[in-house]
Amino acid sequence: MSQIDRDRIFTLLDQFQIELPSWGFADTGTRFGKFVQPAAARSIEEKLADAAQVHAFTGAAPRVAVHALWDFPEGAGHVAGPLQTARKLGVTIGTVNPNYFQDQKYKYGSACSPDPAARDMADKHSLDCIALAKAIGTDAWSLWFADGTNYPGQDDILTRKKRMESALKKWHDATPHGMTMYVEYKPFEPAFYHTDIADWGMAAAFCRKSGPRAKVLVDTGHHLPGANIEHIVAFLIDEGLLGGFHFNDRKYADDDLTIGSIDPYMVFRIFHEIRNAAELHGHDVSKIAYTVDQSHNLKPKIEAMLQTVVHAQELYAKACLVDRKALAVLQGKTDLVGAETLLRDAFYTDIRGVLADWRKRKGIDPDPIAAYRASGYEARVGKERTEKYGTATGGGYA
Amino acid sequence: MSQIDRDRIFTLLDQFQIELPSWGFADTGTRFGKFVQPAAARSIEEKLADAAQVHAFTGAAPRVAVHALWDFPEGAGHVAGPLQTARKLGVTIGTVNPNYFQDQKYKYGSACSPDPAARDMADKHSLDCIALAKAIGTDAWSLWFADGTNYPGQDDILTRKKRMESALKKWHDATPHGMTMYVEYKPFEPAFYHTDIADWGMAAAFCRKSGPRAKVLVDTGHHLPGANIEHIVAFLIDEGLLGGFHFNDRKYADDDLTIGSIDPYMVFRIFHEIRNAAELHGHDVSKIAYTVDQSHNLKPKIEAMLQTVVHAQELYAKACLVDRKALAVLQGKTDLVGAETLLRDAFYTDIRGVLADWRKRKGIDPDPIAAYRASGYEARVGKERTEKYGTATGGGYA
Amino acid sequence: MSQIDRDRIFTLLDQFQIELPSWGFADTGTRFGKFVQPAAARSIEEKLADAAQVHAFTGAAPRVAVHALWDFPEGAGHVAGPLQTARKLGVTIGTVNPNYFQDQKYKYGSACSPDPAARDMADKHSLDCIALAKAIGTDAWSLWFADGTNYPGQDDILTRKKRMESALKKWHDATPHGMTMYVEYKPFEPAFYHTDIADWGMAAAFCRKSGPRAKVLVDTGHHLPGANIEHIVAFLIDEGLLGGFHFNDRKYADDDLTIGSIDPYMVFRIFHEIRNAAELHGHDVSKIAYTVDQSHNLKPKIEAMLQTVVHAQELYAKACLVDRKALAVLQGKTDLVGAETLLRDAFYTDIRGVLADWRKRKGIDPDPIAAYRASGYEARVGKERTEKYGTATGGGYA
Amino acid sequence: MSQIDRDRIFTLLDQFQIELPSWGFADTGTRFGKFVQPAAARSIEEKLADAAQVHAFTGAAPRVAVHALWDFPEGAGHVAGPLQTARKLGVTIGTVNPNYFQDQKYKYGSACSPDPAARDMADKHSLDCIALAKAIGTDAWSLWFADGTNYPGQDDILTRKKRMESALKKWHDATPHGMTMYVEYKPFEPAFYHTDIADWGMAAAFCRKSGPRAKVLVDTGHHLPGANIEHIVAFLIDEGLLGGFHFNDRKYADDDLTIGSIDPYMVFRIFHEIRNAAELHGHDVSKIAYTVDQSHNLKPKIEAMLQTVVHAQELYAKACLVDRKALAVLQGKTDLVGAETLLRDAFYTDIRGVLADWRKRKGIDPDPIAAYRASGYEARVGKERTEKYGTATGGGYA
Repeated sequence: MSQIDRDRIFTLLDQFQIELPSWGFADTGTRFGKFVQPAAARSIEEKLADAAQVHAFTGAAPRVAVHALWDFPEGAGHVAGPLQTARKLGVTIGTVNPNYFQDQKYKYGSACSPDPAARDMADKHSLDCIALAKAIGTDAWSLWFADGTNYPGQDDILTRKKRMESALKKWHDATPHGMTMYVEYKPFEPAFYHTDIADWGMAAAFCRKSGPRAKVLVDTGHHLPGANIEHIVAFLIDEGLLGGFHFNDRKYADDDLTIGSIDPYMVFRIFHEIRNAAELHGHDVSKIAYTVDQSHNLKPKIEAMLQTVVHAQELYAKACLVDRKALAVLQGKTDLVGAETLLRDAFYTDIRGVLADWRKRKGIDPDPIAAYRASGYEARVGKERTEKYGTATGGGYA
Repeated sequence: MSQIDRDRIFTLLDQFQIELPSWGFADTGTRFGKFVQPAAARSIEEKLADAAQVHAFTGAAPRVAVHALWDFPEGAGHVAGPLQTARKLGVTIGTVNPNYFQDQKYKYGSACSPDPAARDMADKHSLDCIALAKAIGTDAWSLWFADGTNYPGQDDILTRKKRMESALKKWHDATPHGMTMYVEYKPFEPAFYHTDIADWGMAAAFCRKSGPRAKVLVDTGHHLPGANIEHIVAFLIDEGLLGGFHFNDRKYADDDLTIGSIDPYMVFRIFHEIRNAAELHGHDVSKIAYTVDQSHNLKPKIEAMLQTVVHAQELYAKACLVDRKALAVLQGKTDLVGAETLLRDAFYTDIRGVLADWRKRKGIDPDPIAAYRASGYEARVGKERTEKYGTATGGGYA
Repeated sequence: MSQIDRDRIFTLLDQFQIELPSWGFADTGTRFGKFVQPAAARSIEEKLADAAQVHAFTGAAPRVAVHALWDFPEGAGHVAGPLQTARKLGVTIGTVNPNYFQDQKYKYGSACSPDPAARDMADKHSLDCIALAKAIGTDAWSLWFADGTNYPGQDDILTRKKRMESALKKWHDATPHGMTMYVEYKPFEPAFYHTDIADWGMAAAFCRKSGPRAKVLVDTGHHLPGANIEHIVAFLIDEGLLGGFHFNDRKYADDDLTIGSIDPYMVFRIFHEIRNAAELHGHDVSKIAYTVDQSHNLKPKIEAMLQTVVHAQELYAKACLVDRKALAVLQGKTDLVGAETLLRDAFYTDIRGVLADWRKRKGIDPDPIAAYRASGYEARVGKERTEKYGTATGGGYA
Repeated sequence: MSQIDRDRIFTLLDQFQIELPSWGFADTGTRFGKFVQPAAARSIEEKLADAAQVHAFTGAAPRVAVHALWDFPEGAGHVAGPLQTARKLGVTIGTVNPNYFQDQKYKYGSACSPDPAARDMADKHSLDCIALAKAIGTDAWSLWFADGTNYPGQDDILTRKKRMESALKKWHDATPHGMTMYVEYKPFEPAFYHTDIADWGMAAAFCRKSGPRAKVLVDTGHHLPGANIEHIVAFLIDEGLLGGFHFNDRKYADDDLTIGSIDPYMVFRIFHEIRNAAELHGHDVSKIAYTVDQSHNLKPKIEAMLQTVVHAQELYAKACLVDRKALAVLQGKTDLVGAETLLRDAFYTDIRGVLADWRKRKGIDPDPIAAYRASGYEARVGKERTEKYGTATGGGYA
């Protein structure tokens, strides 16, 4: 690799940052149970501390997404402590995530529920989240709805659509200028017949009706089998509607595995489309939000997060290697084998040494996982937290 | 069933008409081969004659969709003969279907091809189709694109998107007022990496940019596994973007089986959403086009078409039985078991006697397939066409 | 329907019994939370009482499957009470279900875990379950494993296969003559990369190696998209390996919805293959075990179970209507439309009146759900159990 | 990489050979049409010549699978010419492939057809193929059946199962010692309701009943969405039932794309399981047959084949890098992140230089595709064949 290429990759890596979810450091599970880890974080302070470890060892994850209900149960009036903790730890608090699924009132949905009390609760919670985001001083809140039905006939699909439209419109308008409202879609789970925002097309339609501060959020695990996610990503960028990502990998459903663990070439292709939209089509991709959203119920949480950031960086750097002008020439000649080979050559280039050099230049250990393991952090907090909490786990999935 | 209900069902059945595809009477196959039938139609006259049989025995299929390339190879100047034939047979010529996939020039796509000659060919063909539609005096043309790529890197997804946008916009504007341009989507096949119009969201985005005469066409076989088609249908109606349907059934991919042969309850639910949009939400659903698009490579073609029309009528009539006001009350009370039972009771009501009565009132035999079999038509045309053509088959799939 | 047909259906219905799962009366949920119901059962006595309601109103569900861990935490020495309760309530205790997933030791699997302590725990629990089944005097225990891995490389697939083989062989040999060991398969969840018993072929291979008392259990929700379940069922019967079913319905993954709620025609076709194997091929299908395994986290539990039994009876009775000799004649003539119509006619026959008559003859109300609702049972136990437990829920999923 | 490692990889590469399918050099297509290439081969001599090119430039593909119907229409008595041609070209004729789907008689199946004449035809053809294989002096014939049904009720699944069993048993017994009969499975296409050999479990059951010379053939495109193919492969090896592979890649259905073009990490994992079965479990994997089976309807055929062999070698070599003893240690410690990283490190090692060195040592150009392009072969035969055939295409798919 030439020095010019290397410098270009370094610059692109400098700009590539991944937001970490506070809930990714807490115990999670499946409906069959939750496997507890002694070092799992319970409090927002512990989550910030763990996230700060990931940032310290990677230099690429300075922002922490928070969950309104689990992290700020007392609301916008109680942000000073966590903000100060974050500052001390060298991280910032990023996207605010509401919770529209946990309360018993949400049994039949939140914004779309036939129960007006559930809709009111969702409305109040949303306005609280905006207030929380303002108090934190962040620029984003991100909405995922479990709303849907389990049985044909259970509820009226179009009535629910109108409820969602009016709720999102209201919340969009309450979102201050400079703040983005991300709208996530998901084909199924926990609703098993229909989900009110089932695909990117529905999310896009709702965003269009809401206004310019509403953008679509792509969770890489929220698609039907076979969906071409990089195509959706490119399409959304071109429509001006891509907000960002929840990163995870999957083989079957919304498996929430670590990114690239099942299909790394697909992740590479997503990054390729993003770089392509920027380099060949002049789209501004600098606002795209990259956030991890995984369920580390088997892997140690901080290790899994380090592995995720490192792997995402590698796949992003590989995508940055693609010579898109040369590619366009081959495509124009319909040289299929040549074009594919050019793309694949970037994927097969061993980029790990470049990443190691980038880390060294930033004063970080070239092998983040080994360095983290050597630090003894996990054993230490595991001991501390077990003494503090016993086997009690914090709020969260499952 | 009360007399009032029966009259209401009869009226709704009077309004429910299914367009038949001329190519559904010709030999078709899979990539592994084509199974020939002696009675398969080759000429447009034979296709119209066969379609007229289906209408004669069902009273519900007076319109025949045509394929520009296979049925009118000589173009808009040669419509007089077929029009006269149709008139004599008591049917009309309906939707015009272009062909953007058969010519060798379309190897890398049509409207999206990197080859300008392919794009020009598609453009000229489209304008020819509009001219043909005008000459025929019909109100619709319906576009399906095989465009896409087979390999990552083969072509630039966003460049192709822009090509599609400008082509559709141009053709929309050339579509006269009063004529609709249907835009179909499909997730895969024959393109196996990405398809330029892959889902309803993309079709809707292209229609929005094209203008008010562009509407989305839903082929029931063109979805990824698990997609909730009735949800998409309801959503599109509410957005004012649903044009119509290509009916067929599938278990795996775009299997093109006869409608309801695999999942009749799903077809019933689609009709339920359409009736619901009309009855509870005041949407005008009278313009929705119902067209058959199946590949009868094993079933005798006319029998398969009769079976299709009869089964679609049954499933539609069952959907008309749903008491939607009562359903809304149960839904409002979140009586899940009650609401589901109400919907399912309509599905399980044996409607075949009502259909038989409806046919009798129209002077049609109550059992269309038996009556058709008794007519000896298939044996007669099988003999005639074998004498005329030998084993040569007409143009068409596979 | 002729009197002879009716008598035949009545006899077949008399023989068609569905086992109810004790855990189907307790609170369940998804990984996103559990929705509690005041009337949810916690103790084995309450579960038996609820199940007895379902049997009382349907006459078709006299057997209750139990869960070793949740229902008999104290083991084989404490069965006298529940046995007496069951006897009083007019039901019997059926299949014993071990639990190989809930304990923290099972984090990496049970029988296949790399941790010998986990394997020992699974072994001891299995022998305890056999002892429990003997103490209860039942003829079946049914094994489902969550064993698998989440990441490529996590563990050695073949080493795990050998562990499973030796565990099942040992447990089979400990299973007394006259008792059946059912082995269930599942493609994914909670393991998201590989599952040690992933499909029917693996379950069958393990059963063959274990011995004649091991049989495959088909959970209708445990298949990849598109799998032809009725084909698998017919194949297993012919191989002498079909044990029975866990009934539920699904649209996407293992959704655990009530049977027939999504695809009733598929359930009908499963019953058709079973009846066909018996009537045309002379297979003994009398030992096939039909058990409900659903997650009623939204529907009221007893109502959902009543609806399930009633719907299963209807679909089974429809399958009993098929004239298989006439069908074989049409199949032999490759009369596709005729054969399909014959099958479908059985499905579309309104059987609800016949079921009502069958119930009357047994002294049961013809409308089980209405009769149950009129009984006031749910409100009464809801009140009692809320007073007793508050909002505490019992052990179980999620 | 150490010299010892390099030598080991070189030895393993020497043993890794991929059989090329004669039909992969002929025009193919989808049901929507066939895109013709001037250089496409029509005669068996041309196919052998093209395959010899691939072997000449890769050194890894000395064997050519043939198709009985398309390549040897005159049967076992006419093998001398092709055998001599192959000898001259430095390749050998490998597996014989029967054709059970092309004749009109096979409309309702071959071995399973309700039509005895179709079954007789399949039987005669099979015996002819065995005779052909003997005449050629090869050690394998490979059976794929399109048999199945398109509609519920169309035919009796169990009757068809028995027909398949007796046919395979007879053909197995007619297969001489030292020859293997591969049995392929496929979930759907061209049969769209049920396929008589739908999955590996059915293929394995048929092989077990046939006898020791019957083995399962895994086509990597013949699985339902999400199927863990490497798990199936490992399981079959352990059961002594894996025969070999038909290599191709897919994103949706049986897309027949070039191997690794969509999911290279999956191909790597298949090779990992094979090496693992050999190195850790002592299985003999030397008899596993690797054959390409793709449909190059867009890519130039020889280029696509070169790309395939080169890519398969790369992925195989990466799998050979895995230190399985170290991996087992990490697995035993349940070090998930460590074990996964070890596996992935092998995948991310840039192996292309090692391959180039291996080629140089064998006297082959280090860049097969570039060297082939420089040779001018394609233009030359394209011209020759166009002059000879015009636009007529040879027998084959679509």
